[in-house]
Amino acid sequence: MKEILIATTNKGKVADFKTLLTPLGIIVKSLLDYKDIIDIEETGATFTENAILKAEAISKHFKTNVIADDSGLAIDALQGRPGVYSARYAGFEKNDQANMAKVLEELEGIPTNKRTARFHCVLALAIPNDETKTVEGTCDGIIATSPIGDQGFGYDPIFFLPELGKTMAQLSKEEKNQISHRANAFKQLKGLLESINPGKETSL
Amino acid sequence: MKEILIATTNKGKVADFKTLLTPLGIIVKSLLDYKDIIDIEETGATFTENAILKAEAISKHFKTNVIADDSGLAIDALQGRPGVYSARYAGFEKNDQANMAKVLEELEGIPTNKRTARFHCVLALAIPNDETKTVEGTCDGIIATSPIGDQGFGYDPIFFLPELGKTMAQLSKEEKNQISHRANAFKQLKGLLESINPGKETSL
Repeated sequence: MKEILIATTNKGKVADFKTLLTPLGIIVKSLLDYKDIIDIEETGATFTENAILKAEAISKHFKTNVIADDSGLAIDALQGRPGVYSARYAGFEKNDQANMAKVLEELEGIPTNKRTARFHCVLALAIPNDETKTVEGTCDGIIATSPIGDQGFGYDPIFFLPELGKTMAQLSKEEKNQISHRANAFKQLKGLLESINPGKETSL
Repeated sequence: MKEILIATTNKGKVADFKTLLTPLGIIVKSLLDYKDIIDIEETGATFTENAILKAEAISKHFKTNVIADDSGLAIDALQGRPGVYSARYAGFEKNDQANMAKVLEELEGIPTNKRTARFHCVLALAIPNDETKTVEGTCDGIIATSPIGDQGFGYDPIFFLPELGKTMAQLSKEEKNQISHRANAFKQLKGLLESINPGKETSL
């Protein structure tokens, strides 16, 4: 059987090529197949569910060792929101500015001592033919009244760390990766990494 | 060397994981590498340049047989526009409604006999270790004054075929793939397909 990859993510074009090529006995693949696996939906109710879901789907697809990260911000005054919806809190996918603006608006007038929050990070390690493992790390802070700092990403500019007197976005990459929720989860993952196999070379 | 695939397209997370994993001698790959190759930019000045560019890049990356399609609409009264910008004519990526609205507005008041247009399709066939081949097909029509039909995609609903008395979007999949610009290009490609090798099985 001949196989041809159609270099498009346009559904209409893929349909046209299937109509044209299938009668010739040619198997049609397209970049849409890649896009679907990349844009995998996070349908879990918890960070742990989402991390496992992503790690296992991607590991199964690419037949290699995978780490998936599901992380987010839980604000006490907002009953734990934005939580698993952190990346799309303002309704758009991954719009950091809009997400921070929504959080700041919801916290308007709330005094500092009631702006406590916690970053969560769950890492799932999926290894082909092995059980998926998860670890969780957290990092405590206070939601600032406006964004400060230009490092990091997500809610980092409004996440103030009282012990350091800085927001997460004012830390260097090295500083952040010593104290962040992701770093804390990673410390627990380190031991598990030593035991894994080299992993298939993915054809990226 | 151990290799781990990070199941994310979030640049911030990828950077964090590189900082954490690289010192452990682990090679970090991520879904971003896939995303970049999928969203390859069409920087060519002609349909042919764009089709070759996409076919060769994707074939090189996936080491398999690839067909790339670059196609678009050339309207005589608009000096050949939207042309290579057909998919993003209204400024947004692949918004069919906005693109058609822009074309209809630009043609407002122009009589039927001056609304002639031509769909172009260039197909490039890239085979590993072989020369890339291109073929071109066209299809003549008239730009309607409003969209009709719900089949097809792109500018199909405003592309009226005088001989059939229908727009491209009123044709069935089978009818469209007998007379369209893509079908006409494909007829020339058919002979070339017979000579190709089965192609690597891509791990989609």
